[in-house]
Amino acid sequence: MDVNGTPYRSIWLAKNGWQVDIIDQTRLPHEFVVARLSTLAQAATAIRDMLVRGAPLIGATAAYGFCLGLREKADDAELGKIADTLVDCRPTAVNLRWAVQRMLAVLTPLPRSARVSTAYKEAAAICEEDVVTNKAIGRHGAGLLQDIWKKKGQHGPVNILTHCNAGWLATVDWGTALAPVFRAHSDGIPVHVWVDETRPRNQGAHLTAWELVSAGIDHHLIVDNAGGHLMQHGEVDICIVGTDRTAASGDVCNKIGTYLKALAAFDNKVPFYVALPGSTIDWQVTNGVGEIPIEERDSEEVLVVRGLHDDKIEGVRIAPADTPAGNPAFDVTPARLVTGLITERGVCPASRRGLSSLYPKRENDA
Amino acid sequence: MDVNGTPYRSIWLAKNGWQVDIIDQTRLPHEFVVARLSTLAQAATAIRDMLVRGAPLIGATAAYGFCLGLREKADDAELGKIADTLVDCRPTAVNLRWAVQRMLAVLTPLPRSARVSTAYKEAAAICEEDVVTNKAIGRHGAGLLQDIWKKKGQHGPVNILTHCNAGWLATVDWGTALAPVFRAHSDGIPVHVWVDETRPRNQGAHLTAWELVSAGIDHHLIVDNAGGHLMQHGEVDICIVGTDRTAASGDVCNKIGTYLKALAAFDNKVPFYVALPGSTIDWQVTNGVGEIPIEERDSEEVLVVRGLHDDKIEGVRIAPADTPAGNPAFDVTPARLVTGLITERGVCPASRRGLSSLYPKRENDA
Repeated sequence: MDVNGTPYRSIWLAKNGWQVDIIDQTRLPHEFVVARLSTLAQAATAIRDMLVRGAPLIGATAAYGFCLGLREKADDAELGKIADTLVDCRPTAVNLRWAVQRMLAVLTPLPRSARVSTAYKEAAAICEEDVVTNKAIGRHGAGLLQDIWKKKGQHGPVNILTHCNAGWLATVDWGTALAPVFRAHSDGIPVHVWVDETRPRNQGAHLTAWELVSAGIDHHLIVDNAGGHLMQHGEVDICIVGTDRTAASGDVCNKIGTYLKALAAFDNKVPFYVALPGSTIDWQVTNGVGEIPIEERDSEEVLVVRGLHDDKIEGVRIAPADTPAGNPAFDVTPARLVTGLITERGVCPASRRGLSSLYPKRENDA
Repeated sequence: MDVNGTPYRSIWLAKNGWQVDIIDQTRLPHEFVVARLSTLAQAATAIRDMLVRGAPLIGATAAYGFCLGLREKADDAELGKIADTLVDCRPTAVNLRWAVQRMLAVLTPLPRSARVSTAYKEAAAICEEDVVTNKAIGRHGAGLLQDIWKKKGQHGPVNILTHCNAGWLATVDWGTALAPVFRAHSDGIPVHVWVDETRPRNQGAHLTAWELVSAGIDHHLIVDNAGGHLMQHGEVDICIVGTDRTAASGDVCNKIGTYLKALAAFDNKVPFYVALPGSTIDWQVTNGVGEIPIEERDSEEVLVVRGLHDDKIEGVRIAPADTPAGNPAFDVTPARLVTGLITERGVCPASRRGLSSLYPKRENDA
C-alpha cells in the first residue's frame, strides 16, 4: 500500500538480495522507520518484540528468518534448531508454525549447498502468495459490504467495526479484515470504520488508524469498551476482524477482546465476520477455547501506555507502583458467534463443514 | 477509608465551616491532592472535569455546590439557576438530579435568610446517609461473597471482576461495588479483584487499583478486553459493578463497557451483580437503552492517555494526528443480563417487581 505516495509492503528483501527490511511497527503511527534484519536472532527478536505482528506477517518474517539462519549454518541439525527458535517466539498464531513447517518440508530433502538459495525462493513465494490471498479475501469481503450498502438503499456509509489491526501491516500487503474495506473504498462504496483502540499495545489506534488515514478512509477511533453501545444503537452494520488461529470447528483465536465484540454483535444481530487465509486454520484443533494456547505477555504492556509527548514516543505508567497486571494476549471466539469466515476461496460458515467445503484437501492432510 | 493511616472521605466541609474540600481524582494514583471549592462555579467545574466522579459523589458535590451558590445569592430566582447549573454538568448520572431536587424541595419553602444554613445541614445529611447506605450495601454484598467462598469449599480466593471505579472515591465513603469487597476482606474472606483498566480515563487503573493497594487487597489490573477470556476459563467467580442510573425496569447505565462484561458473564454463567443506592433509581425510565441520555465526552479523553513519566503526570497521544475519536461515556446493560441488584435494603432481582419490593414508596412517588 502507499505511504506518502510510495508503494510499500510490510516486509521485503533488501537490494543486496539477502538482508530483510521490515517496517518497525512499534514506532507507528508517530514514526515511519524501516528496520533491517541480518540474522536469525534479529528476526526472532522482531517477532517476539512485535516489530512485526499479525499472523500472516509473522509467518512471512519467520520464512525470511529461516533464510538468515541458514546463511549462518545450513546443516541438518541446524534446520531443526532454526525451526525451534522461530516457533518458540510466539505460541498462539499458527502461521508461524505453518511457515516454518513449509520451509522445513522444502529444505530438508535438499543438499546443504542448495538450501540457502531455495529458502529465499520459498520465502519470496510465501510473500507473493500472501498478497494474492489477501486480494482475494478483499474481493470476497467487499461483496458483503456491497450487499449491505444495497440493503441500506445506498444511503450513508457502511459502518464497519474492527478490532486490533488486520490491515496490510498484519500481512505482506492488503491485510485480511481490512482488505474488503480497501477494496470497497476503491470500488466507490462509502465506508466508515469504527477502530477499536485495542489495548494493550493499541494496534487499532497505532496501526489501523494510521492505515486508514494513509488510505483516506473515513474512520473514528473508539475505546474497546464502546463497541457494544454502538451496536445497541444501530451504528455498526458489520464487524470484521482477523484471526491468529482458526480451529477446524470454526472457533477463532484473535487479539484479546474479540470475543466481547462477537458477543455484542450476536446480541444485536450485527453480522460478525472473520477474515483469514487458509494458512491460519489449525485442522488439529476442534475446541478453540480449550485447546489453543494463549500467550501471556509482559505485564508492562498493560501498566505502561506508549504514545507521543513533545514529539517523542514515551510511555506513561497508568497504575500505582504496587499494582500487578495480567496480560493474556488473545481470546477465543466460539464459532456459534461467528456469522461467516471470509477466506481467499470465498465466504463460508464458521464450522468444520464450512471450512471443509473450501479446503477439502487440507483437512485430509491434518 | 484510610490513606496512609489517616481516615478520609472523598468530600468534606473545611474547618472554616463553609468551603468544601475534595480529593482531586484526576491526579490519582500518582498524586494525592486535596482541592478546595469556594464557589458554585468551582463545584460545577469539579463535576464537569471529573475531579469528582461516581454517581453518589456527584450528588454529594452538587449538594455542597448548592450551598456555595446560595452564599453568593439566595433569592428565589437563584434557586432555579443554581439547580440548572449543577444538573447541566453531567447528563447521565441521576444522582445529580436527585440531590439537586432534594435541595430544592427543602430550600424553596424557606425564607431567604434561612436557606444557607439549612442547605449546609441538608448537604451534610446527604453525605452521612450515603455512608450509611454504602455500609449496608457492603453488608448485603459481602453475604454473596461469603456464599461463593463456601461453595468453593473455602479454597482459594473469591475472584471478583469490577469495571470502572465504584469504590469509596465514587461515593462519600465505602463505595458501592467495592463496599462488599472491603467488608468481606475485613471479615476474613480471601478476595482477589480483577480490575478493568476502564478506558477512557482509566478509573480502574487510576482509582480502583489505588483503593485496593491502600486497603491491602489482592488484585490484578487487566485491560478492558481481558474479562471475557478470564470468564471463559473459570477465573472470575462474580462480577460486581456500580451504576450511574438504574431504570425502573432494572436496566443499568454504567461506565462504557459494562454491557460487554455483562454479556460475557451471561455467556459463561458468571453471576453479574450491580451495587447501588436507591438514589440512582430513575423510576420514570422503563427502557434503559432507549431512554437514558448517554453523555458524549471530549474526544481528547480517547486520543490522549495520562500517566506518570519521569515523576510527572503527562499525556501521550496514541493515534495519528488526523484520526478523530468517538467517546460515549456510558452504556446500558439490559436487566436480562443482571443476576441481581445489591442495594442498601438488600439484594433483589433486576426488575420492576424486584425494585418495587424494596422501594414500594418511591415507586408510587414517581
